Amino acid sequence: MNIRFYNAKILKLKENRKFVIETGELWVKGDTICYIGDGTNGGRVFENQKEDIIIWDREIDVCGNLLMPGFKNAHTHTAMTFLRSYADDLPLQDWLFQQVFPREDQLTPEDVYYLDILGIMEYLTSGITSNFDMYFFPPQNAKASVDCGFRTVQTSGLNNFGGTVELLEENYHIVNEMSDLSSFIVGFHAEYTTSKELMEGVAKLAQKLKSPVFMHNAETKKEVDECKQRWGITPTQLTDGLGMYEYGGGGYHCVWFEEADFEIFKKRNLTAVTNPASNLKLASGIAQVKRFMDEGISLAIGTDGAASNNCLDMFREMFLTTGLAKVRESDASCVSADSVLYMATAGGAHAMGLDDCDRLEVGKKADLIMIDLQQPNMQPENNIVKNIVYSGSKQNVKMTMVNGRILYEDAKFAIGFEPAEIYRKANEIIGRMK
Amino acid sequence: MNIRFYNAKILKLKENRKFVIETGELWVKGDTICYIGDGTNGGRVFENQKEDIIIWDREIDVCGNLLMPGFKNAHTHTAMTFLRSYADDLPLQDWLFQQVFPREDQLTPEDVYYLDILGIMEYLTSGITSNFDMYFFPPQNAKASVDCGFRTVQTSGLNNFGGTVELLEENYHIVNEMSDLSSFIVGFHAEYTTSKELMEGVAKLAQKLKSPVFMHNAETKKEVDECKQRWGITPTQLTDGLGMYEYGGGGYHCVWFEEADFEIFKKRNLTAVTNPASNLKLASGIAQVKRFMDEGISLAIGTDGAASNNCLDMFREMFLTTGLAKVRESDASCVSADSVLYMATAGGAHAMGLDDCDRLEVGKKADLIMIDLQQPNMQPENNIVKNIVYSGSKQNVKMTMVNGRILYEDAKFAIGFEPAEIYRKANEIIGRMK
Repeated sequence: MNIRFYNAKILKLKENRKFVIETGELWVKGDTICYIGDGTNGGRVFENQKEDIIIWDREIDVCGNLLMPGFKNAHTHTAMTFLRSYADDLPLQDWLFQQVFPREDQLTPEDVYYLDILGIMEYLTSGITSNFDMYFFPPQNAKASVDCGFRTVQTSGLNNFGGTVELLEENYHIVNEMSDLSSFIVGFHAEYTTSKELMEGVAKLAQKLKSPVFMHNAETKKEVDECKQRWGITPTQLTDGLGMYEYGGGGYHCVWFEEADFEIFKKRNLTAVTNPASNLKLASGIAQVKRFMDEGISLAIGTDGAASNNCLDMFREMFLTTGLAKVRESDASCVSADSVLYMATAGGAHAMGLDDCDRLEVGKKADLIMIDLQQPNMQPENNIVKNIVYSGSKQNVKMTMVNGRILYEDAKFAIGFEPAEIYRKANEIIGRMK
Repeated sequence: MNIRFYNAKILKLKENRKFVIETGELWVKGDTICYIGDGTNGGRVFENQKEDIIIWDREIDVCGNLLMPGFKNAHTHTAMTFLRSYADDLPLQDWLFQQVFPREDQLTPEDVYYLDILGIMEYLTSGITSNFDMYFFPPQNAKASVDCGFRTVQTSGLNNFGGTVELLEENYHIVNEMSDLSSFIVGFHAEYTTSKELMEGVAKLAQKLKSPVFMHNAETKKEVDECKQRWGITPTQLTDGLGMYEYGGGGYHCVWFEEADFEIFKKRNLTAVTNPASNLKLASGIAQVKRFMDEGISLAIGTDGAASNNCLDMFREMFLTTGLAKVRESDASCVSADSVLYMATAGGAHAMGLDDCDRLEVGKKADLIMIDLQQPNMQPENNIVKNIVYSGSKQNVKMTMVNGRILYEDAKFAIGFEPAEIYRKANEIIGRMK
């Protein structure tokens, strides 16, 4: 499909990580952005020195609304949609061991496929164009994404209760080779659920595959305290000592960080993925986002799974990322809207190995969304970036395009599945377990 | 208008403050809910022992979605929409004295009228059916609401820089007598902006009018510290000592409360209105919501104005009310979804003197909303109340009805004003001040 967007405001990223808004046209050819400009050259682009006249499949009047890069959900467990509002209001470890794990044991690969699709639908309503997913059956998760046309980066949730390093390696290849829309980065669940032997195996595999490594890291104080009791060092120190980060990577949550952890994240160029709503709801704590920024450490934002959040909404996470930093530091000026929008788009893309989806620029993949500015929460237009970060909501997402395909537009899905059927499946799956 | 809703889930409030969901029909006759039941008596209701057969103006298939009471926004400055995303990222006192006050000085009553309408439009998109508003020109604010068909409770923002006790009394009568949709409760801005003489005048007036009194109370630590330096006691102690709460009332924000403040709020049956998003964004702090609940003190929830929030969204406030309490207390089980939904509906109605709008029940005013459950963020339906509080978003608001009139339905407004014209006005007003 070749799609011409005109009458658009276009959010572009400058080298200094500041956003600017230009007005004009943005053209998509196949899966790629092929032109951004004033549109005066009437459908003509130059490729490899040759002029190409594009035949449009669709021309979309953006009506002065905003085109911007899609959000990257840099940490989630998509198929956990089945536990949304099922086992709330419990501390993390009780919630995980008494409520979540026993029900996850009952999931079939087919269940996970449909629960993923439910999650993907919600991502699309929130302008999320790719997810960094850790869950059982990575090939099944990847298939759900690819079948919907959604972009996914899978990692492994390997731990003592499930998985092997061999299976991790197998999944790495299956998912990376499945589609342009799916990729895989080495990972495991967390230090507190994984033996040292398994972690050593993961580290060796990451070195062999030259892959970054991600895990849940310092989500709760209890996790860090117990790791220090076991090993005398923090999860970051332990995993770094095992040679885990030769090719980069990072951690999810990163709430209870200590000096040594910041040093290692700096030295290894790791990304801290913050998950503020989940950290509130499970009473885990408030991450030191300002400190990460001051140290120059890369940041990205994730929703975590629907069992702990409970919604998959990047607008809520963006507001919380800055709002919680402000109250934590008693400093209303810290963590600007621009920096949060960077984390939610380019920062996530960087963490997920999706540098070709990080911004609106010629040659980048067409993972982009249209934000409806003609809504009361986006008016007046004093500062559109601030409006998005501080006031934005799912209701503003008019369109979500992944890899050049419109998957969501004017509240309708175009993913090849009927919403009612997906809701029926989700209710049936959790109904079986009650 | 007589409107029949059928195929509905209906959220009802039990005596123990728990919500239950029934399926059936809800009928609205004029401005009042006249029937809730299974619909078997085909449009017949009994009034004063007489049978009345209702002729329907509209019959609405709710398609299994949820009817629930509208949200009550229990603290806001509606017309501050013009400063949305204009002067962010500053501490409260700098923000207020250097950015907000100088621009507010330039507002005309006509400006306020249109800026109010912009705010009311956003309320409707968030299922808010009434606001507790403190701003300049209360009669003008009330007129904007009444012209839109929206319900408003005004209070005074009287302080040393504007207003008199006489004007407050005049506004009390004008607004209370203007319409069924408008009422007025005595109030003033805050201890830190108001002389003791003025506060004494407010207290005397409240006693004369038998009115509750509301003010900003303990929003920042600086405010409380300075009050104690001036008077040796907290704002709550000072205002209580002036005889302010003979007829009840309460405070907005109530973040930096001390033992004596909790005691006075209990003794006087006052309401603490929490404003969590604004308290984050201005780095003011996190209110002790669990402590208020443990003490049995009434709670309500407000968005505050768009200059400090920046959106007027009760879904965000509800999630924050429980999420921030959980992380503050390190207790994921505290402040349940039911209790938060109570604060956002009946709690607010109680604070605002709108006990006839507090719940769905025969004889109550028809201030109600329809929540779209056929959206991915509302599925599966493990627990609809939790889904609303933890996952809900503006995108779920299919309809907002105030006083029996549908003002918002399927993303269209029916308030007698064109959205584009209101947006143009808002941009023009702030444009003049830049």
